[in-house]
Amino acid sequence: MPDTRVFLLDGGSLVLDGFHVFWNRGPAGEVRFPVYSILIDHPQGRFLFDSGYDLAHVQAVLPFEKPQQTAEQTIPGALGLLGLTPADVGVVVNSHFHFDHVGGNKFFPHAKKFCHAAELRQASYPAAFEGLGYSDLSFSVAAAEARGKADQLLPGATLENTAFEGLEGDVDLAPGLRLFHTPGHAIGHYSLMVEFNARRPILFTIDAAYSRKSLDTLCQSSFHIDPVAGVQSMLRLRQLAEEHDAELIFSHDAESFAGYRISPAFYGSPEAAAD
Amino acid sequence: MPDTRVFLLDGGSLVLDGFHVFWNRGPAGEVRFPVYSILIDHPQGRFLFDSGYDLAHVQAVLPFEKPQQTAEQTIPGALGLLGLTPADVGVVVNSHFHFDHVGGNKFFPHAKKFCHAAELRQASYPAAFEGLGYSDLSFSVAAAEARGKADQLLPGATLENTAFEGLEGDVDLAPGLRLFHTPGHAIGHYSLMVEFNARRPILFTIDAAYSRKSLDTLCQSSFHIDPVAGVQSMLRLRQLAEEHDAELIFSHDAESFAGYRISPAFYGSPEAAAD
Repeated sequence: MPDTRVFLLDGGSLVLDGFHVFWNRGPAGEVRFPVYSILIDHPQGRFLFDSGYDLAHVQAVLPFEKPQQTAEQTIPGALGLLGLTPADVGVVVNSHFHFDHVGGNKFFPHAKKFCHAAELRQASYPAAFEGLGYSDLSFSVAAAEARGKADQLLPGATLENTAFEGLEGDVDLAPGLRLFHTPGHAIGHYSLMVEFNARRPILFTIDAAYSRKSLDTLCQSSFHIDPVAGVQSMLRLRQLAEEHDAELIFSHDAESFAGYRISPAFYGSPEAAAD
Repeated sequence: MPDTRVFLLDGGSLVLDGFHVFWNRGPAGEVRFPVYSILIDHPQGRFLFDSGYDLAHVQAVLPFEKPQQTAEQTIPGALGLLGLTPADVGVVVNSHFHFDHVGGNKFFPHAKKFCHAAELRQASYPAAFEGLGYSDLSFSVAAAEARGKADQLLPGATLENTAFEGLEGDVDLAPGLRLFHTPGHAIGHYSLMVEFNARRPILFTIDAAYSRKSLDTLCQSSFHIDPVAGVQSMLRLRQLAEEHDAELIFSHDAESFAGYRISPAFYGSPEAAAD
């Protein structure tokens, strides 16, 4: 069986204050960090995990995050660099529905879509302080209509072709593709472990730990709905990494990102000499 | 029966970043805000609600909060301006055990002490991100020993003379002195309503709402353990104020504070012409 290959699709970057990246600790000041999506070329098909941010949305709604994104850093652009189009992806999974993880979902009306069931409710009925996090509703007709944002939807979006299968708890999506429920940052947040034939597993923390420093210091971001659960999720990620001898890859960490293999390079294939 | 009189004991000021005062909204930049305690001269005796911060503690442990406090802004100093000493106060109640609300507790070994039962546990075993909030343990031998900070205790402090009666839920401490459990900022946080014979009640939000702007925008501070509960507590405070036609007084709000009556002026006595 061919080995799974994992491509990190560079999605550009955003800026936050240091007090947001490292909750209440900082230091203050602008921190620019990467955003990326994860394309998994699996024996059972292609899975896309998260879909980055939509540049026009951020420019309109969160311009203070100073988005920098080229055409090749959009989902269609990044797939194009691999000779692929959105139609080549069969399954889309969202770690959670914050704007910087769902911006490209709109290009996958044909795909099967998964998320944590709680996240569907949350995007439609967010807490008072979650409005900006869940501000891009283009991924779901149901959520966009619940929030009065149907104007964000692309022509052709329907309840059916933006529907998700809502999951609960930890789930094996396919052999070697494992979702771990890691709430805190978002109530329905999933982290992702990918197992390979020929190399160590990779554990993508996603936003349960923006960076290695976050995990080392148990300092979550200031964007969260349940900080007690957030600490528990970080402790769980540490334990999972140890139990599975997994390589940790973080979500919004410029320093770590500089050392990651970015698409068209990839992780996991036995043909990849560096493995 | 003589009317209750309420004195706001000025306790100096501290500085936080705007992103801390208004969680994730800011704007960024230094915000200096007041800290005060509440002395209640009640027909059943004198109650002190909270006791400010200890200057030496903040200078040593949280110097970045830039404390400014004169001798008259300590608890003994502020009581002295009224011709009182700590021995004249029979009951001390703490809204919660963050350092800027317990710093003067050490002067009241003789007093009966009340808090929410959950707050006793939390100060002794805080969440990973609450260590600095609960950094002054001089108010409790039990908490100081649990945290390995017995060096903070004054000579003469014992388990007995620093013991609290732990309360649950809403409690009437005495006629017209009502505690409302308003968790979020701290798990065992109490807000205080004081009723009078001759004027509207006062609802002290304490840290459930630092300022009028906080309550108006439902924007809690970035220091919290349960932000969902924090929003619910703010909604409850709004409702309580309306139901009781209560005047709202906020905890850390320089703009509002400038309009408050500060000790030796007071609220509530019929002798006070301004009432």
